[in-house]
Amino acid sequence: MKIEELTEIVNQKLDEYMEIVYPQKIFKSMKYTVQLPGKRLRPIMCIESARLFGTDIENVLPTACAIEMLHAQTLIHDDLPCMDNDDYRRGKLTNHKVFGEAIAVLAGDALLTYAPQVILKYSKNLSSEKLVKIMAEYFQAAGAYGVIAGQVMDIEAEKLHNPYQIYDVDEEKYTEQDAELLHFIHLHKTSDLFKLAVRCGAIIGGADEQKLIALTEFAEKMGIAFQIADDILDVTSTFEKMGKTLGKDQASGKLTYVSLYGLEKAKIDLGILIQECFEILQDNDFNSEIFVSILNKIKAL
Amino acid sequence: MKIEELTEIVNQKLDEYMEIVYPQKIFKSMKYTVQLPGKRLRPIMCIESARLFGTDIENVLPTACAIEMLHAQTLIHDDLPCMDNDDYRRGKLTNHKVFGEAIAVLAGDALLTYAPQVILKYSKNLSSEKLVKIMAEYFQAAGAYGVIAGQVMDIEAEKLHNPYQIYDVDEEKYTEQDAELLHFIHLHKTSDLFKLAVRCGAIIGGADEQKLIALTEFAEKMGIAFQIADDILDVTSTFEKMGKTLGKDQASGKLTYVSLYGLEKAKIDLGILIQECFEILQDNDFNSEIFVSILNKIKAL
Repeated sequence: MKIEELTEIVNQKLDEYMEIVYPQKIFKSMKYTVQLPGKRLRPIMCIESARLFGTDIENVLPTACAIEMLHAQTLIHDDLPCMDNDDYRRGKLTNHKVFGEAIAVLAGDALLTYAPQVILKYSKNLSSEKLVKIMAEYFQAAGAYGVIAGQVMDIEAEKLHNPYQIYDVDEEKYTEQDAELLHFIHLHKTSDLFKLAVRCGAIIGGADEQKLIALTEFAEKMGIAFQIADDILDVTSTFEKMGKTLGKDQASGKLTYVSLYGLEKAKIDLGILIQECFEILQDNDFNSEIFVSILNKIKAL
Repeated sequence: MKIEELTEIVNQKLDEYMEIVYPQKIFKSMKYTVQLPGKRLRPIMCIESARLFGTDIENVLPTACAIEMLHAQTLIHDDLPCMDNDDYRRGKLTNHKVFGEAIAVLAGDALLTYAPQVILKYSKNLSSEKLVKIMAEYFQAAGAYGVIAGQVMDIEAEKLHNPYQIYDVDEEKYTEQDAELLHFIHLHKTSDLFKLAVRCGAIIGGADEQKLIALTEFAEKMGIAFQIADDILDVTSTFEKMGKTLGKDQASGKLTYVSLYGLEKAKIDLGILIQECFEILQDNDFNSEIFVSILNKIKAL
């Protein structure tokens, strides 16, 4: 199956799994951000990981869509005035701009438990043992050990660091500590959901421990590559292309891969990570056009 | 066991289950609100429900404590400036007053998945089937079908309704619709967590369907009684006794049991609900000093 077909299936299921019941406002608010136009990268990675082990797509769709709902949750709360204070996301108004701050906070909260509820409700052929394993993966990635750890340090980094001059990095300006901090932020804020996606897919597919570890490493590197590409785009792209306010990192003196290492090194390191991802696929006989296609898209960003 | 002993055990376990790791700020913030002095009513109801069916307390403690963590989550987010904007809770500063708004939002988020993670991590003698059942109960109560539905309508009610004159209720001023709305809010905002507590206890204990329904009804009524008592206290108690700013309902013209029906009827209805709770205990041979003691405390509030 092609990426475009998978995206279409995921979009259909996201609609199907999200009912609008009383009180409608909260369900509409949840669905609004989940349904913002997106690449559906995380669910596609989840589905593809399961397919590598011969799983029928029906068995993995609830989990794949749940991870997209979790991703939407992080976007809603990250965009709040007390966090990044963003007005636009994927070319549309952010959740709190449409529904107000109180409902946006509650919609994010609600998605955090709605997502795993979708897994329990719609997964027809998964044993209780597998469901418990998937729940454990979900909680680990969604919480204070996962994406939230990344978001916390992202906020802390903004407070701790002075602005770096972009394009003109003086090596003495950044420290080993800054590099570690940035790696921690990227690892948790971005890689953890990619890891969750492939790990859940692999668990549903019945992967052995070695394949599970290989896929985890693959997703970790892909997540960081994705984040570096995003940091590059923040300084090179336009609002029209990205659908969100750009240049904010630069303006706010935020710690990013580009602000820390400069644009040139960011591009080089992105290439290296993508190459390492290709090697993991090859070394493990993961024969996946989908993964290759995603890697090529990130590289070309 | 007496309530005081149970409270002590729950407090010990809440401390034990909540580690402080990097990034410490988020874990400290989560633990801060969970550890505010409280009656631990929900975990105690969970433990007692399991005990009714002969379950060892060790089997139910992780779930009981998880429900207290979920309760703390709702407090953190309800107190936020964009919600009720409260500075004090249980006599201490609210979470965002200590840690800032961004961390308070994230601490609430993190507790939503930390709580069920505690259940999976520390429950030693529960089958995967039972764990899945408990997860399903947790998601239903914690999300948009549960407490969040209550909180959403609480916010909506504040916007929709004009202030009612307290102590001087003109019957023509409130409508059937208001009464239904208030019941919906109390049912979800308050009863849903009590129901979650007894249902999880009963499931862990292996209760049959009939006993499960009886306990659910018991918790629903107790929750509403508890909320009516809270509404009464808002107009009759003091900050020193309650540890939070009082008279806020009255000042903001909030839809409460007292504002809708008047103080006298509120007291009478509270008595009726407590009586109905006693009858459920009797009719089902639930021999529980703990439940009797909780009911008497709510009645005497």
